[in-house]
Amino acid sequence: MKKINTSAISGAQELLPSLQTEFDRLKSGILHAFLAHGFIKIETPIIDRTEILLAKAGGDTEKQIYKVIKTAETADQANQALRFDHTVPLARYTVEHMNELAFPFKATQVARNFRGERPQKGRFREFYQCDVDVIGWEKLPIAYDTEIIMTLADAMLVLPIPRFLIRVSNRKLLTGLLEGLNLQQWTSEIFNIVDHAEKVSPEVTREALENLGIGSENVVKITTFTQIRGKRAEIIPKLESLGSQNETFEQGLRELETVITELENRLRSETYARIDVEADMVIVRGLDYYTGTVFETVAPDYREIGSICSGGRYADLARYYTDQHLPGVGGSIGLSRLFYILRNYGLINNAQSKPVDVAIVPISENEYTTAQELAEKLRRSDKKVDVVLTDKRLGDKLTYAAKIANFAIIVGDDEVRSGNFKIKNLQTGKVTDLADWQ
Amino acid sequence: MKKINTSAISGAQELLPSLQTEFDRLKSGILHAFLAHGFIKIETPIIDRTEILLAKAGGDTEKQIYKVIKTAETADQANQALRFDHTVPLARYTVEHMNELAFPFKATQVARNFRGERPQKGRFREFYQCDVDVIGWEKLPIAYDTEIIMTLADAMLVLPIPRFLIRVSNRKLLTGLLEGLNLQQWTSEIFNIVDHAEKVSPEVTREALENLGIGSENVVKITTFTQIRGKRAEIIPKLESLGSQNETFEQGLRELETVITELENRLRSETYARIDVEADMVIVRGLDYYTGTVFETVAPDYREIGSICSGGRYADLARYYTDQHLPGVGGSIGLSRLFYILRNYGLINNAQSKPVDVAIVPISENEYTTAQELAEKLRRSDKKVDVVLTDKRLGDKLTYAAKIANFAIIVGDDEVRSGNFKIKNLQTGKVTDLADWQ
Repeated sequence: MKKINTSAISGAQELLPSLQTEFDRLKSGILHAFLAHGFIKIETPIIDRTEILLAKAGGDTEKQIYKVIKTAETADQANQALRFDHTVPLARYTVEHMNELAFPFKATQVARNFRGERPQKGRFREFYQCDVDVIGWEKLPIAYDTEIIMTLADAMLVLPIPRFLIRVSNRKLLTGLLEGLNLQQWTSEIFNIVDHAEKVSPEVTREALENLGIGSENVVKITTFTQIRGKRAEIIPKLESLGSQNETFEQGLRELETVITELENRLRSETYARIDVEADMVIVRGLDYYTGTVFETVAPDYREIGSICSGGRYADLARYYTDQHLPGVGGSIGLSRLFYILRNYGLINNAQSKPVDVAIVPISENEYTTAQELAEKLRRSDKKVDVVLTDKRLGDKLTYAAKIANFAIIVGDDEVRSGNFKIKNLQTGKVTDLADWQ
Repeated sequence: MKKINTSAISGAQELLPSLQTEFDRLKSGILHAFLAHGFIKIETPIIDRTEILLAKAGGDTEKQIYKVIKTAETADQANQALRFDHTVPLARYTVEHMNELAFPFKATQVARNFRGERPQKGRFREFYQCDVDVIGWEKLPIAYDTEIIMTLADAMLVLPIPRFLIRVSNRKLLTGLLEGLNLQQWTSEIFNIVDHAEKVSPEVTREALENLGIGSENVVKITTFTQIRGKRAEIIPKLESLGSQNETFEQGLRELETVITELENRLRSETYARIDVEADMVIVRGLDYYTGTVFETVAPDYREIGSICSGGRYADLARYYTDQHLPGVGGSIGLSRLFYILRNYGLINNAQSKPVDVAIVPISENEYTTAQELAEKLRRSDKKVDVVLTDKRLGDKLTYAAKIANFAIIVGDDEVRSGNFKIKNLQTGKVTDLADWQ
């Protein structure tokens, strides 16, 4: 029956209505939490100039970027491309509109990005990311680091995951520790080894450190450090006992103490019963973009989900576009990937997510007016209402109603005369008087 | 201070926060109206295969389409491109998921499309379109034509335009009239002349018709027909008096009568006091895609806005992708263009659209806990709340608050002790007890 292949491009998430409804529920719940925290929604063009998009890039980004052309151009001539994350357009937007924005600028973007990756499970070429960032003018108080994490905590409560663990650290600690040990020249190698420590055995990590030739005493100090994790009361004495007299380390320690103290206080509320927090020195976040607080979140009951959201503090948002110093802190939820994984774990219940609230089924054209009036009334109380206008038999109309809606109301002669309607729950079959419903 | 050009690409709409807030208010109001009418939101990938996108195309589309490439490909090799409207992806989606969808399939898409047009006033390369469509399986009752128009009427009520006039017709009338006059071979030329009739003088239209060499009597009949407009009670007798015995004409007349009768009835409600409707035979909608009901909407007080929304009935959604007969009816609001024009007419009041509802301003760090607790409470009653965490002077914090928020609450010693807060309207300066607010 089909003439040509009508599948979506590979690497794109195209959902049937019930799943789309469930996806949208999560997406708008997350955005709602971001806006509730006073973040300002901005929208940047999906197409941007390659000059902007590749100002910093290199490596994978350059390989994965989608260039955009019209006729008669080659890839080399393409001066426009699709954005691959929200950070670069945010930097461009902030610099471009610097004089009209109020700082700290709390920005959120919940939209699609594009990467020409090889499509694989949970990795999409076209995917939603939900970002929050606070950008300071010259400086930005540490209190915003907590604010970003609490904003993401409120967003995570929307997700159908039983428990969350937020793991937080501060990159100044390891940076300072290495300075104190005079190991600055190995900073990026050591960060890289620590960043991968959870994916390999402790022996492999120790061996990797020893192979740097930094001396076994230093290896012990670094591994001792990276194994420190727990609540504020546990970790602060342990970090102090490392006895690093280094200033960067001390600054990181004070910052981490501020953040973890405040997080423990605020997450104590009953609202956050599903969310736990701990400091964990093995968290360094790969990107050298981050310079202070770093965090990620896992699901203790579903470790395989990996990081649910992550982020951190950066020294300078837009150094490629301006000399103005714009420090910031931000975090991101990779929603398309997450949604894919949640589906695989059976945590998305799409059976209950019919896109329409109520289908009104007039038996014949004689009941159309009554049906439409009833629909208008239900819409005023914020219901999504379809009126089934096909000239099919009642049974067929009800089958249709059950596919798209959660409830149905049949409108026949009797109902038109009496003005009394019954509403049927299409999941349970239970029938109620409309007057008693909700 | 800037290092490289950070402007958005030309032809994209990049808005500052207050305008973005106003744009989003309209966009979500429109979507809300669509969902309230039982339309199902679907999301198709922004990137699609050129084979799909260009199956029907030709002319402008082929010239305007943005192709998408990775490295080392030329435009000719590009087999992916950005969608340029919602109709083609809707057709692909419907065919691809045919067996899992319930028909009539009421679909809505509110999202961005892309065209590599020369950017000019109100014409964007990256733009939002808000579409609704009902797609039938084999057939689709005429009642859905009214339903599409009523859905768009509810969406239009969101727009800051004082009055609307919906103009409706049916292409079967002119098609049938020409059949009856034995002028079928000039059908596309005559439709084209009528489609442009409102842009030129009556003399130019008459001359264009005369130049076809169809005889002056036929020219008079056609111009008489195209000048028929008004309410149902006026136009039906006039159309009947044309005395076309043609079956297509008769069918069009019956369909138009059904649609205009129902629209007049439903729009009589007080809710639609701003919306008027009339039948107008000059409306044919250029695209030969439409086969029955056609409509467009104008603002009588701002004729220059042009068509606010338009659409119609089509015989076959997806004939390029399937032999399955899928008739439909749909309509669309070109929101980016419309927003641009509304701004130019001063109809968008962005001064009142601060993105944040309440900025809470703690005087010092001592009040942070109280401020955060108050913020959480206000968020529970669905407010967008920022807590200002900068270490600036109170005056600077309040200046910041006034830039981002509609209301401010100062939290100092007294407030922490008493638990009583005052809230200030940052537009009017009026101060109220928070307990008495909303």
